[in-house]
Amino acid sequence: MADDRHVFQFGGGQADGSAADKQLLGGKGANLAEMTRLGLPVPPGFTITTTACNHYFGNEESWPEGMEQQVRAGVTAVETLTDKTFGSPENPLLFSVRSGAPVSMPGMMDTVLNLGLNDETVQALALKSGNPRFAWDSYRRFLMMFGDVVLRIHMSRFNRAFRDIGGTREAAELTLDELKSLCMAFKGVIEGATGSFPSDPWDQLRAAIDAVFKSFNTQRARYYRKTHGIPADCGTGVNVQAMVFGNMGEQSATGVAFTRDPSTGKRIFFGEWLPNAQGEDVVAGTHTPRPLNNERGGDAESTLESWMPEVYAEFHELQRKLEVHYRDMQDIEFTVEDGTLYLLQTRTGKRTTAAALQIAVDLVDEGIISEEEALARIQPEKLEEVLRPVLDPDAPRRVIGKGLPASPGAASGKVVFHSEEAQELVERGEQVVLVRMETSPEDIQGMTVSEGILTSRGGQTSHAAVVARGMGKPCVVGASDIAVDYGRQLFYAGDTVVRRGDFITLDGSTGEIMEGSVPTLPPATDSGAMSKLLAWADARARLTVRANADNGPDAARARELGACGIGLCRTEHMFFQATALRSMRQLILAEDKRSRLRALANVLPIQRDDFCEIFRAMDGLPVTVRLLDPPLHEFLPVAHEDVLQVAEDLGVRPEKLQERLESLHESNPMMGHRGCRLGMTSPEIYETQVRAILEAAVEVTREGIEVLPEIMIPLVGLAGELERLRARAEDTAEKVLSELGESVDYKIGTMIELPRACLTADKVAEHADFFSFGTNDLTQMTWGFSRDDMGKFFNAYMHEGILKDSPLATFDIEGVGHLVEIAVEKGRATSPRLKVGVCGEHGGDPVGVAFFHRVGLDYVSCSPFRVPVARLAAAHAALGLIES
Amino acid sequence: MADDRHVFQFGGGQADGSAADKQLLGGKGANLAEMTRLGLPVPPGFTITTTACNHYFGNEESWPEGMEQQVRAGVTAVETLTDKTFGSPENPLLFSVRSGAPVSMPGMMDTVLNLGLNDETVQALALKSGNPRFAWDSYRRFLMMFGDVVLRIHMSRFNRAFRDIGGTREAAELTLDELKSLCMAFKGVIEGATGSFPSDPWDQLRAAIDAVFKSFNTQRARYYRKTHGIPADCGTGVNVQAMVFGNMGEQSATGVAFTRDPSTGKRIFFGEWLPNAQGEDVVAGTHTPRPLNNERGGDAESTLESWMPEVYAEFHELQRKLEVHYRDMQDIEFTVEDGTLYLLQTRTGKRTTAAALQIAVDLVDEGIISEEEALARIQPEKLEEVLRPVLDPDAPRRVIGKGLPASPGAASGKVVFHSEEAQELVERGEQVVLVRMETSPEDIQGMTVSEGILTSRGGQTSHAAVVARGMGKPCVVGASDIAVDYGRQLFYAGDTVVRRGDFITLDGSTGEIMEGSVPTLPPATDSGAMSKLLAWADARARLTVRANADNGPDAARARELGACGIGLCRTEHMFFQATALRSMRQLILAEDKRSRLRALANVLPIQRDDFCEIFRAMDGLPVTVRLLDPPLHEFLPVAHEDVLQVAEDLGVRPEKLQERLESLHESNPMMGHRGCRLGMTSPEIYETQVRAILEAAVEVTREGIEVLPEIMIPLVGLAGELERLRARAEDTAEKVLSELGESVDYKIGTMIELPRACLTADKVAEHADFFSFGTNDLTQMTWGFSRDDMGKFFNAYMHEGILKDSPLATFDIEGVGHLVEIAVEKGRATSPRLKVGVCGEHGGDPVGVAFFHRVGLDYVSCSPFRVPVARLAAAHAALGLIES
Repeated sequence: MADDRHVFQFGGGQADGSAADKQLLGGKGANLAEMTRLGLPVPPGFTITTTACNHYFGNEESWPEGMEQQVRAGVTAVETLTDKTFGSPENPLLFSVRSGAPVSMPGMMDTVLNLGLNDETVQALALKSGNPRFAWDSYRRFLMMFGDVVLRIHMSRFNRAFRDIGGTREAAELTLDELKSLCMAFKGVIEGATGSFPSDPWDQLRAAIDAVFKSFNTQRARYYRKTHGIPADCGTGVNVQAMVFGNMGEQSATGVAFTRDPSTGKRIFFGEWLPNAQGEDVVAGTHTPRPLNNERGGDAESTLESWMPEVYAEFHELQRKLEVHYRDMQDIEFTVEDGTLYLLQTRTGKRTTAAALQIAVDLVDEGIISEEEALARIQPEKLEEVLRPVLDPDAPRRVIGKGLPASPGAASGKVVFHSEEAQELVERGEQVVLVRMETSPEDIQGMTVSEGILTSRGGQTSHAAVVARGMGKPCVVGASDIAVDYGRQLFYAGDTVVRRGDFITLDGSTGEIMEGSVPTLPPATDSGAMSKLLAWADARARLTVRANADNGPDAARARELGACGIGLCRTEHMFFQATALRSMRQLILAEDKRSRLRALANVLPIQRDDFCEIFRAMDGLPVTVRLLDPPLHEFLPVAHEDVLQVAEDLGVRPEKLQERLESLHESNPMMGHRGCRLGMTSPEIYETQVRAILEAAVEVTREGIEVLPEIMIPLVGLAGELERLRARAEDTAEKVLSELGESVDYKIGTMIELPRACLTADKVAEHADFFSFGTNDLTQMTWGFSRDDMGKFFNAYMHEGILKDSPLATFDIEGVGHLVEIAVEKGRATSPRLKVGVCGEHGGDPVGVAFFHRVGLDYVSCSPFRVPVARLAAAHAALGLIES
Repeated sequence: MADDRHVFQFGGGQADGSAADKQLLGGKGANLAEMTRLGLPVPPGFTITTTACNHYFGNEESWPEGMEQQVRAGVTAVETLTDKTFGSPENPLLFSVRSGAPVSMPGMMDTVLNLGLNDETVQALALKSGNPRFAWDSYRRFLMMFGDVVLRIHMSRFNRAFRDIGGTREAAELTLDELKSLCMAFKGVIEGATGSFPSDPWDQLRAAIDAVFKSFNTQRARYYRKTHGIPADCGTGVNVQAMVFGNMGEQSATGVAFTRDPSTGKRIFFGEWLPNAQGEDVVAGTHTPRPLNNERGGDAESTLESWMPEVYAEFHELQRKLEVHYRDMQDIEFTVEDGTLYLLQTRTGKRTTAAALQIAVDLVDEGIISEEEALARIQPEKLEEVLRPVLDPDAPRRVIGKGLPASPGAASGKVVFHSEEAQELVERGEQVVLVRMETSPEDIQGMTVSEGILTSRGGQTSHAAVVARGMGKPCVVGASDIAVDYGRQLFYAGDTVVRRGDFITLDGSTGEIMEGSVPTLPPATDSGAMSKLLAWADARARLTVRANADNGPDAARARELGACGIGLCRTEHMFFQATALRSMRQLILAEDKRSRLRALANVLPIQRDDFCEIFRAMDGLPVTVRLLDPPLHEFLPVAHEDVLQVAEDLGVRPEKLQERLESLHESNPMMGHRGCRLGMTSPEIYETQVRAILEAAVEVTREGIEVLPEIMIPLVGLAGELERLRARAEDTAEKVLSELGESVDYKIGTMIELPRACLTADKVAEHADFFSFGTNDLTQMTWGFSRDDMGKFFNAYMHEGILKDSPLATFDIEGVGHLVEIAVEKGRATSPRLKVGVCGEHGGDPVGVAFFHRVGLDYVSCSPFRVPVARLAAAHAALGLIES
């Protein structure tokens, strides 16, 4: 029985289908049925099913038996409801015909409006509306749309016919007679192309239905379905709906409304309308639309509320009903025809992330949705946006280049090319943007004071990107179409030359580089919605979230953003502080152990003070400190002039410094003498660091603050390394504690960042209190690429679709994830209560977080500004909302 | 009962124990019992058991009950057999006392000889031997040994006493009276240190037995047992054996014999002897020993055969018997006392590898051992030695430095520092040794013509090491104590300065660098023994062995050495040929596709010819060709002057070349734009290579030769890479075959050398006909080190015992092996008949081979000179002789 039914009616408060019939009626058809059932004033009509569409293609493009009659019955039903007649020369019923598949896809047929018009019915429309211009213009539009989308006549032929009559004028500038001539000319185009124009409305309707069916099977639509995993036989529905007109006079109107403010999420009924107008007039910008009401202030006279108080009152009630029904903020298209309100479409409204947060939280408070639903409605990665300033969308801008969006937010400032310059200008009260080919640890100070960072090289996890995200600073990297010339203190971006001191603006969310200073908007002030939502998230998450932070202020910020500890405190930045850097260089050049120890003695108090600050900020929460990781040559200058200056500063011969530089040179520094390998061969460094950590812990403990230090040894590949270094660290720690007569509960663990550490995790775990996956290095080693060089080929891969996203941006579950699973399993086999976390960039990547949840990790750690993202992602993972 | 027996007798053709009693009697005791049982003329004696030793330590250093009586009974039995009496002032029986544990270990007590001598018995010995010097000298030695090893009196006290009488003379230069005084003085030393000298032979014997027991429990012995996994309670036996003397007159003699020639393995009875002498005289070199017989030519008069024909005849028969019994070549110590032959010791004789081969094969032919036993007796890695010249062991040498032994064999030549110079000198007929800080592909030509290669940097799998092994050329790498100065054309080795043109000699088996030209011996000529043994090996091995070879001659040599195909033909060397290199540089500098194709058109015929040669050499066997792997910058010059010259040669501005160089610069080239990543972004290169392979295959096929090309795509980390590149390669191949109208059966597979390729092998296998593990890169990525930089920390690790051997030299089963297992399992899950091999250096490492056998690989591939090693290792693996 059901198979014989090809046409589903809606109108007059009743509908054959409902929201549940999406597969059969398509999204739009099901929605129209649902809206009608809700008692909303939807213009009546009917939907032809997707199974009819499939029958059409399975049977040499013929309609199933009985469909013709059902369509006729459908038309009759609409005639009854509207009191109009299809093809009537007195009171003609007109239709819109639209496609509507279960899943929306590009390439499907556009709307045909005003179907049913011909030389006779246009006259009736003119008479009935008292507006011949409107009638003939409607006819003109219909002829063009029908010719284009149904008959597939090239638009250039209509354009040529238009030029012959209207020249360079717009349609609105033509006289009524010219419009009439144009309609005849358009009919001529159609007749010229196809032999005849179907004046019979029934012929028009049949052709339009066939055209919708055919549009389902175009090459473009087929390709889209194939590449997006949409079933080839889902079919499309065809929606045939009575036309209503907002331009039938002063009691007609049209507009768009939102049930809440889509920018802020505030609970105000918000929208725009125009009297005596058609939908496209609101969008086109030729008229200035008026506010629905004066909830946002403004001229009370022009509101729909004062213009048509009854219509407005009905609409206001309906929108409330709609929101409760759909359980979300709605975006509604409406038309008032001669004092009667019609709702043409309602759908979930787009909104800013700040609004999304506010709405989700309010809907919970209003009892409309559950906390879990609120959590599900926010994409974790969107949360970061809320914390950053954004470009004013209305401000003009000139984009001069584009790079990779590395850290969101907008920043403007004067261009500088060197870290020292950045500091100088900022001290003079200027705002700067640091522009570099790439950054290195020596640039940290300069990055800290800059508004934003731009590099011409590197990927989304290059040094610049990682550090900028850590600092919460807008950053664009790998802008390969800009060419930096340090010598001349300028960069080229296409034809534009940007010199030192010129203003530029970066959009770290899009990667765009703009000339001059583009105005920004401050971050949406937190109404408390985010904290509220994240509290619900924390209550559901199993993973806890820590932050990567290297100093007191960052640690404090991380804590504000809800971090439950520091998962990665990199100590190398501490060595780049001027005094420490000088000592470090002395250490590297020292000839004997005594000189090395003397050099380190200067570093000790600096590090200790840094640790004290962090420990104070994290009172009661664990702090994982990674011992020195980079190779020693990173602490030495590279450029010849720098070598000369540093040598002079240190009081050594430049040749000696040069010699040391050469002896430290490495072919592949990423795989070189760094991490625990350095700890093994230069024991004094780790000894000094462990001493600084423990001395700080004692000092802060004595202030009555709870300190939970975790010492992390990086780049372990061999259990023997950790065994040896743990023993040495324990020796030092015990020595310090007994010297100071204090007891501090510290842990010693390792960063798992080499494939071999994963593969032999059972052995490594014998010497570790915790594991923390360093997924940046682990990913690079597993894939065998270095983030500094990957752009050259991975960009091509992404372009060709061989790779969807950089595995540094989105965690590679299949490859790297397998290693993580092996490591967790083997590590816990040795030590069932081993604490396991992640401190690589993927700790803030929702895909990564979902995976880490699934394999049973205890925590993830990410840059402070990603903490909210990770907290929400952890809840999503626990609720099964992210696949991994 | 057995527990009460502490003393096991041997002598007169009967023995209580046998070879089976090694645990109870120790190795030496069991061997003496076995020799006696065999009817060999062994001086009689007895062995005190290891359980007695354990009882000693378990019971406050007391002998077990009854042992004293059993020792006395043992002495009595020896007295009966020798017709001498222990302590008799007329015909005294003297003993040697030796330790002998089940496993030999350092720190155990040395021998005490002539036990039983005192002021009385020494007179009897003088009288009986007619040689008072001998008697008193024996007494002197006994006193010193007893004092030293039993009483633990410091040797300096005996030396001082000696100096007081003999001054700076040797003992042999003292008069008889002086000798007698010396004995009295030594007694005085003992009395001074311990209170009294035990004149009673029974006291001497008890003290010596206790000393042997105690030596089992020294700190050194305990440490050795602990570190070598020897049970702490294995105990030691004590061997008490009648002394016999080869210096009792002209009918006495002593010597050492081998049942076969230990240098060549020839079946001749070989040895040296001295009349009227003691064992140490033969070894000491103060007398020139005489040949046993004239099988090797020489003076017939001086042979034992002519001097004592009956003794010789008996000995000849015994040695034959011994060899048949012990089923291997024996090293025998013998003494003739007054016309009676005694065998003091027999053991498996040490031999050169060439001799070992010959002996093993001969013993099979003689029906003494099985083929499997013959295979088991040769350590696979030793086979490589047989193919190389070695330093003349007798030649004087001055070692001026040491590096890592990278490729065995000895080489002498004039020092050169540049490849071009090497070629020039060789063209003038000189022999050269190439000395470099490190080598690069540009040095291939120079390496080819050099006798040997020395580098100051790099490890055992540095470029120099890998290429040298491939060429079968002696090579020493990573000689960090030499400092190369290219500018001044010299290198320093400690105080020595070696200039361009000076001669040096390298020993690639030890890593030694010697001044001047040290004479070498040619490789032992292959008697056919190796081929015979390897044929037996092949019959048992499951793994087949291929070779890594890049040109026709190497391929031919590999085939001679038994390779079943080429497992890795690297194509980059082909690009370093002068014309090809120039074209390659043009390609890199080309601005458009047409110029790139034109440049490649020059490379095509060169590669094709190379492939033709290799295919001809490998008629009927598969040849795996790896498409280009190194990053493009390896084809460009580095030094500034070279840049200028190359730019001139190519007719481009030096700035342009410099610019390109900079744009190709990579931070970590190992992880950079190379392998299939290059193939993806510069499709023309692989296209040209595939075309060259297929054109060569067609050409050679038409010569009636069977060609089995396998195209290998390197550095795949993502299945999509292989999918794309396979499709492109197939396109090209089909195009070539259809152009030429020929059909060739080719395969396309991939090199598995990234951890991710292993972890996703199921996906990768969908596009591969074969996998070949590139274990060099796989090891480096898994561990996260680069072979060029590893020396700085891994040497320290090995020094500290954290790492036993470089994972590039000995395959890392625990870490990298786990990845290999995952890859094999996943790959075969997708494609059960997937052919899987190894083409990294570990293909020739016996530990690796055993592992690859266990995890079910099909073949290993190694450098040609390692093919015999791998063939034997494959058999050992199949026979379960190597653990993995």
